[in-house]
Amino acid sequence: MADIFERLVKHYGPIGQHRERAHGYFAFPKLEGEIGSRMKFRGKEMIVWSLNNYLGLANHPEIRKTDAEAAKEFGLAAPMGARMMSGNSNYHEQLEKELAAFEHKEDAILLNYGYQGIMSAIDVLCSRHDVIVYDAESHACIIDGLRLHTGHRYVYKHNDMEDLVKQLERATALIDKQKAGGILVITEGVFGMAGDQGKLKEITALKKQFEFRLLVDDAHGFGTLGKTGAGAGEEQGCQDEIDLYFSTFAKSMASIGAFIAGPKVIIDYIRYNIRSQIFAKSLPMPIVIGNLKRLEMLRNMPEMKAKLWHNALQLQKGLKERGFDIGKTDSVVTPVYMKGGVEEATAMVMDLRENYHIFCSIVVYPVIPKGHIIYRLIPTAVHTDADIQETLHAFSETKAKLDAGAYKVDAIPDMAEVH
Amino acid sequence: MADIFERLVKHYGPIGQHRERAHGYFAFPKLEGEIGSRMKFRGKEMIVWSLNNYLGLANHPEIRKTDAEAAKEFGLAAPMGARMMSGNSNYHEQLEKELAAFEHKEDAILLNYGYQGIMSAIDVLCSRHDVIVYDAESHACIIDGLRLHTGHRYVYKHNDMEDLVKQLERATALIDKQKAGGILVITEGVFGMAGDQGKLKEITALKKQFEFRLLVDDAHGFGTLGKTGAGAGEEQGCQDEIDLYFSTFAKSMASIGAFIAGPKVIIDYIRYNIRSQIFAKSLPMPIVIGNLKRLEMLRNMPEMKAKLWHNALQLQKGLKERGFDIGKTDSVVTPVYMKGGVEEATAMVMDLRENYHIFCSIVVYPVIPKGHIIYRLIPTAVHTDADIQETLHAFSETKAKLDAGAYKVDAIPDMAEVH
Repeated sequence: MADIFERLVKHYGPIGQHRERAHGYFAFPKLEGEIGSRMKFRGKEMIVWSLNNYLGLANHPEIRKTDAEAAKEFGLAAPMGARMMSGNSNYHEQLEKELAAFEHKEDAILLNYGYQGIMSAIDVLCSRHDVIVYDAESHACIIDGLRLHTGHRYVYKHNDMEDLVKQLERATALIDKQKAGGILVITEGVFGMAGDQGKLKEITALKKQFEFRLLVDDAHGFGTLGKTGAGAGEEQGCQDEIDLYFSTFAKSMASIGAFIAGPKVIIDYIRYNIRSQIFAKSLPMPIVIGNLKRLEMLRNMPEMKAKLWHNALQLQKGLKERGFDIGKTDSVVTPVYMKGGVEEATAMVMDLRENYHIFCSIVVYPVIPKGHIIYRLIPTAVHTDADIQETLHAFSETKAKLDAGAYKVDAIPDMAEVH
Repeated sequence: MADIFERLVKHYGPIGQHRERAHGYFAFPKLEGEIGSRMKFRGKEMIVWSLNNYLGLANHPEIRKTDAEAAKEFGLAAPMGARMMSGNSNYHEQLEKELAAFEHKEDAILLNYGYQGIMSAIDVLCSRHDVIVYDAESHACIIDGLRLHTGHRYVYKHNDMEDLVKQLERATALIDKQKAGGILVITEGVFGMAGDQGKLKEITALKKQFEFRLLVDDAHGFGTLGKTGAGAGEEQGCQDEIDLYFSTFAKSMASIGAFIAGPKVIIDYIRYNIRSQIFAKSLPMPIVIGNLKRLEMLRNMPEMKAKLWHNALQLQKGLKERGFDIGKTDSVVTPVYMKGGVEEATAMVMDLRENYHIFCSIVVYPVIPKGHIIYRLIPTAVHTDADIQETLHAFSETKAKLDAGAYKVDAIPDMAEVH
């Protein structure tokens, strides 16, 4: 007989095992001050590349005004209860209508949080005979949704259409054999780590060959891609072939919550059956009103998206000109791939923060293979040319140090020495 | 080959199948105006018994002031990103410290939403060798957490200690056979439908006999039970034996979010590994600051809890005196059990709303067995004696009508006639 707690503390997990050294610096850092391209970290001003505030809405004066006024009018408690029982409002319904129209769908349903929302949506859409076919690099929230599915699931290699065809063939054969069930394909509009778009156009073209429904998580595409900002489906000219379009409000909308848009009958089905909504408190009114305002600005101020792309392309071009590998991104998400051990990555991040005042996120083993380092830069509409030039300069210098072995283990200063 | 969408719309689910008649009235009703004991429903003032605003904090002037000021100072966007990456703040940490102290635990972790929080916590705590033993009437969010568990789970009859012993014996035998794994028992502090407390004292006493860890979801006990309002564990004198104490902020705290309190090492483990937090945006600052204020008031104003209990006991006593069956509640949750079909229940709810201006929630088949009706009344600290007397009067009259068969099918007015 073992004790659950004893087992847990034997190994704190991939990041948790480093928590004593990492806490407050590499993990759970505090960025202070108004949200923007420059914020304070441990008292020092940093150029920040870690926030998904793509359009710069988080701190826009009109948003700040709407957020403040809505909280003053309604407080943060209302409405109380789940929407089905007592927590519905005209504002919630209005936001659903506007999101549906923006995404060229018949209807939309608000979700309290993106993570639980898509998880629970996958759960409510599929029965045990259905087969889910999904991209191998799908976000954790999709994976957790799949874990609730009691039927079969087939994974296809990331964005690999040949493998997708293979998996659709397998799924079709299984369903024919079962004489029951259908296929749900799940992918993303933009993969948040590498920044490459899901091949939505190619996937929807497969509908001629196979029968399936397509659910797209467009967390990073919503607001950043497409002529009107409607996302990766609009960008690739296949929005109508996406059966269910999902996005969180946590990125371009700089808020919390999420939505799914699609055919009215299916959204109605979700509305009346999705467990995480039926059994949980409604989104607070000021959040909903704040999201209405954010959506209005996102629709009416294309200059924000234009500025975002200006910055993203300037950053990406600058990095490439300096010989950096930014992989296959075709979104504003900008990964920088380097070679090095975890210790070297750690030392480089500290150098970037302490001496160059650049704050960006880093991905290392075990999330990616040993010996690789990814710096993940998120440009926004509120970054300036100076932010970008300073950052490019810092990356050039630190890369030269990395290549020269300056960040090798014995060169790392003790955390306590960093002030 | 079937189409997923075609299957879904064949049957809209237990409540969804009635959506055309029910929408906006029985399902997704809108309660308008300031949150309190009297609100507007379809333009008419109603005495409302459907909101878990136990302590009346939702609309307390000090809470409204704090909510408004925090939203003005920070907006609703900050902080951006998951706490582990970029969304941490002193306020988040402060709230965790205060919640831990209030619950007499070493540490606590904030969760974005109760539903996804406990679900994901169950997931992160248990490995495939662990056995989860849980109460049969556990809330949907616990059930969804169990669904993520790949190991065994044994259910025990609701609050039945004899059956719990049986299931613990089974679980222990299995683990001995496996030579790996431990036991997690999950129950609730107060069961939200019937209002009876989980038998925490008896369960914790079983620790002498069996080795297990105990997770308690005290959504309805937090703030309403125990000398200081610390919940069902304090009420029953066994808080120290509860290993992990969970509550949402959606009830007594009149907010969103949730927390788990427990030993520091385990909370740290959860902090670094819980998927729904690591991969989702941090709770907005004004929500966190609003919750700090709510917790302060909950701690320092015991008169709110006293008023809540005064009202609850007055309501429960009045109902019993009038011959109503309120079952086995030993919390403020007040169910009223009646006999009747779904149509009769429907007609009675309409009569209560339209002619007596009483708004309460109703539970019918298929949630409970056919022929039974539960009216679920949630008293709060802001209800008045007049609210209670009017409600008791209305229940007496409508019950007499129900018993006399006045709500039989042919007596139901068409929804269109209700204005």
